[in-house]
Amino acid sequence: MMKKIAFQGERGAFSEIAAARYFGKNVSLSPSFSFSEVFEKINSGKAQYGIVPIENSLYGSVFETYDLLSQYSFSIFGEMNLQIRHNLLAAKDYGLKEIKEIYSHPQALGQCSIFLKKIKGSKIIPFYDTAGAAKIISDSEKPSAAIASSEAAKIYRLKILHRNIQNNENNFTRFLVLGKKPAAKKYKKPKSSICFELKSIPGALFKALSVFALREIDLLKIESRPIPHKPFKYFFYADFKGSLDDGIIQQAIDHLAEISLGIQKFGSYETGKTFYS
Amino acid sequence: MMKKIAFQGERGAFSEIAAARYFGKNVSLSPSFSFSEVFEKINSGKAQYGIVPIENSLYGSVFETYDLLSQYSFSIFGEMNLQIRHNLLAAKDYGLKEIKEIYSHPQALGQCSIFLKKIKGSKIIPFYDTAGAAKIISDSEKPSAAIASSEAAKIYRLKILHRNIQNNENNFTRFLVLGKKPAAKKYKKPKSSICFELKSIPGALFKALSVFALREIDLLKIESRPIPHKPFKYFFYADFKGSLDDGIIQQAIDHLAEISLGIQKFGSYETGKTFYS
Repeated sequence: MMKKIAFQGERGAFSEIAAARYFGKNVSLSPSFSFSEVFEKINSGKAQYGIVPIENSLYGSVFETYDLLSQYSFSIFGEMNLQIRHNLLAAKDYGLKEIKEIYSHPQALGQCSIFLKKIKGSKIIPFYDTAGAAKIISDSEKPSAAIASSEAAKIYRLKILHRNIQNNENNFTRFLVLGKKPAAKKYKKPKSSICFELKSIPGALFKALSVFALREIDLLKIESRPIPHKPFKYFFYADFKGSLDDGIIQQAIDHLAEISLGIQKFGSYETGKTFYS
Repeated sequence: MMKKIAFQGERGAFSEIAAARYFGKNVSLSPSFSFSEVFEKINSGKAQYGIVPIENSLYGSVFETYDLLSQYSFSIFGEMNLQIRHNLLAAKDYGLKEIKEIYSHPQALGQCSIFLKKIKGSKIIPFYDTAGAAKIISDSEKPSAAIASSEAAKIYRLKILHRNIQNNENNFTRFLVLGKKPAAKKYKKPKSSICFELKSIPGALFKALSVFALREIDLLKIESRPIPHKPFKYFFYADFKGSLDDGIIQQAIDHLAEISLGIQKFGSYETGKTFYS
């Protein structure tokens, strides 16, 4: 049976493109309404893997993914970066001048603000999803357009009125591939991810980073997220080079445990490639 | 002339409540469409101060505020924490069972998810603003409700159907008060905020934190934000105890400058009080 991969969004969503690039053709891709639904599909076994955005190079971290990571405690199987390119898609045979409404996700609208300022007479309408916007304009009666991927144009049989309308070419989203079982243990360039809650001691975060720095372990990213029942206290998420099986990393984690209330390990995985569109 | 304070949202927004609590009665509060508009009003002199949310105890940092802080380089005049309490407000004389649609900001809807699950037969409709939701249902023809502040109920003459419907009582938002001129220089419990970009050197963040830890300066918060033209590189925002006029803090900043490409200072201000609603 084909492996099933859950992603958030309608068909044509950037998460679906990421999944198709990462897994190739012999998988079945399962659209999901929300990030929680992706995690639930993995949890119930309805999907073997899920793919979720964790960070965008312009907008920063995806909070919801971080919070779900610590709630579900799945393993990270892999990661990949996808270049995000937006296009103006139109229903039927409309030209740019006839367009009365432009639909897209608020982030995509923001990412195309320079292009949108040049268009007069169109109402900008925020929508929950870029691919969802492409879907609804495909059977709208008004002359409407959507900002979405070129894949969404194919799926919903829309015309691409303008390609690459984003303000900034340096628009990349990093995706994580998640599953219930731990990942394979062979890597060329391994990296690992953990989450921890520090004890209330002076200089706690400095001490946590020293755990890595003193052992010359390359800390790649650190992110803090609020702890729901402890106002203005934080969970810290760290990505670093190396595998959790390396002796020096095991020592670092033991050291970190001395100053932490708890540590969650998301596993080790191959450092991701970047896919250009 | 009364001082003018810009806030984001419609009348009755939590930012307006924060401004009223912080400044008292003798100011004029100016509703603004977006965070950018608040910053622009300060910049053009249309408002002497602006008040903006920087962090919520459940949802974490407000990215947009962080990004605007470094773009505008205003001074932080002060801060305050406001407890967020949500209420279900209804138009006219409708009872809970008649309500067909419930409007609010997606974050507020999420914060009241347990309450909302118990309500059957109502469509949940995401709206750009809690107070804006209260405003539109006040002249809706359908039996509608909004999730918003009790102040919004007064302003739009709505009935409070249910009070305190949020999942978690520990829901606080921290607000910053911003202005163009530097703040007064007398504080009981000063804190300061800066932003910096680190050089690409090994253990850069560890070294940056050591600048504070080695001098026993209490680092209160650190937040990273992507640099738009440098994919997966970050600006760091730091809050710490003490005033930028303190000798030891000046030394720390000099030390930080050795490993930074640039440092932006937002000034020193009094540690904020918490206001309960």
